[in-house]
Amino acid sequence: MRKISYIKDFATWKEEFEFSIDVDIRFSEVDMFGHMNNVATFAYFEEARIKFMMHKGIFTDLSGDQVPVVGDLQCDYHKQVYFGEYLTIYVKVNSVGNSSMDIHYLGLKPNGDIAITGRGAIINMDKSTGRSAPIPDSYRKLIE
Amino acid sequence: MRKISYIKDFATWKEEFEFSIDVDIRFSEVDMFGHMNNVATFAYFEEARIKFMMHKGIFTDLSGDQVPVVGDLQCDYHKQVYFGEYLTIYVKVNSVGNSSMDIHYLGLKPNGDIAITGRGAIINMDKSTGRSAPIPDSYRKLIE
Amino acid sequence: MRKISYIKDFATWKEEFEFSIDVDIRFSEVDMFGHMNNVATFAYFEEARIKFMMHKGIFTDLSGDQVPVVGDLQCDYHKQVYFGEYLTIYVKVNSVGNSSMDIHYLGLKPNGDIAITGRGAIINMDKSTGRSAPIPDSYRKLIE
Amino acid sequence: MRKISYIKDFATWKEEFEFSIDVDIRFSEVDMFGHMNNVATFAYFEEARIKFMMHKGIFTDLSGDQVPVVGDLQCDYHKQVYFGEYLTIYVKVNSVGNSSMDIHYLGLKPNGDIAITGRGAIINMDKSTGRSAPIPDSYRKLIE
Repeated sequence: MRKISYIKDFATWKEEFEFSIDVDIRFSEVDMFGHMNNVATFAYFEEARIKFMMHKGIFTDLSGDQVPVVGDLQCDYHKQVYFGEYLTIYVKVNSVGNSSMDIHYLGLKPNGDIAITGRGAIINMDKSTGRSAPIPDSYRKLIE
Repeated sequence: MRKISYIKDFATWKEEFEFSIDVDIRFSEVDMFGHMNNVATFAYFEEARIKFMMHKGIFTDLSGDQVPVVGDLQCDYHKQVYFGEYLTIYVKVNSVGNSSMDIHYLGLKPNGDIAITGRGAIINMDKSTGRSAPIPDSYRKLIE
Repeated sequence: MRKISYIKDFATWKEEFEFSIDVDIRFSEVDMFGHMNNVATFAYFEEARIKFMMHKGIFTDLSGDQVPVVGDLQCDYHKQVYFGEYLTIYVKVNSVGNSSMDIHYLGLKPNGDIAITGRGAIINMDKSTGRSAPIPDSYRKLIE
Repeated sequence: MRKISYIKDFATWKEEFEFSIDVDIRFSEVDMFGHMNNVATFAYFEEARIKFMMHKGIFTDLSGDQVPVVGDLQCDYHKQVYFGEYLTIYVKVNSVGNSSMDIHYLGLKPNGDIAITGRGAIINMDKSTGRSAPIPDSYRKLIE
């Protein structure tokens, strides 16, 4: 695998993932060349992230005062994926800052090949002020 | 605007854009909070990139031996965008390597506010070998 | 044009449209054959319908007690549409029942060719009961 | 269930389905009210249809002279579906004409509730002429 700025040591990085979902590549997510469209991967990340959060019990009450907002997103494409295939998308909190979390992603093919890797910051936003707010201690405990 | 790794000096970076398209935020691209979904921005980048390539005359023959493949993609979200709004998506080639190009993106609201910025590598892939191939000199001329 | 069950006389039916929006066919909405994906047309209908409702001043307050719910949808594909093309999507209220409206759609190519036609019922739903509610008289006036 | 024009007797109609796929409702397919977006159902139908065709062995060679083209599509929405739920989408060939097939769909919730029903014609199109062509006898045998 080529060098990725957000992955220091791949073996260690990979070992830290504990949660994953399987995602089918849909026909509507395949481009004119039969390849998985590169926009779709961000929907897969989102799906994995939200199910991970539900699993951990964080950001589950979206009608509350604080909501998770995406600060940035990135994806690296390592292998072509085709219609009819599926990916196992792993997700983890790589680090927690004052008001944001760095979420990392790994998408593997059934044979273990690395299809995609990615990351993105989730910011805890206070709805009333429209500004970032500290990550609650209760969330920190649930994540660790 | 917060510091973005791929932008050294924002004013200079912004000035280099010459091509843009307008994109409407669709209802189906709005999430449960009324915000533009963060997956949709990558479809906007794709749309802008492909129309930019057609405009420049590069990668126009997709039935040829070489096709553009997305190597990576990233997007930073600076301001919330809502249903009913539209974005002007600027696109440029920021640098050209041996077999890839670094494409940069800027999405502005009608009032000039920076909504999103982004970048991503496009790799020139040889269909027959499945490997990267040098960017043709003819493309280098058309880009500069 | 072939016979369509919801269109008695095409010339009359077409004349009754007064509102339209233009929609670009995006690259991500093109299938492996370079054709407009048939799922995308329903997003175009939705986009046209919502902008039509905002234009007419009906169902504008989605935080109110009553919300519009889609009862059914159908689309007939008359001509292939390709990436880079755009469609003008016309929308009208074809008839109003007790608690629903029959919305009709027409998608034309720039040269006037009929690309798609469609229809679907919108039901006025009461959030608190989860059941249909009569279309308010104020809406009936705004539509006629 | 309300009366649907393409379903004569629901019990009989339902019994004829033999093939199905499970589809997760994604977060990006949920609207501002937390409901499954009505555009997404057509992507589910498409997914089920294509996997059904692969299962039956029809229209598997898309590089051949004849390709399946969607003539029309319709969907009736019977129950709200929410994020986190999944649907089992059943698909069958309801009837075969000279150059087209009428494909029917049924989407059930895990508890057996009918969420959606639908149908649509698939036309066998000859690429070289751009016109419909007779359904091959080999396909007729594989379907029955």
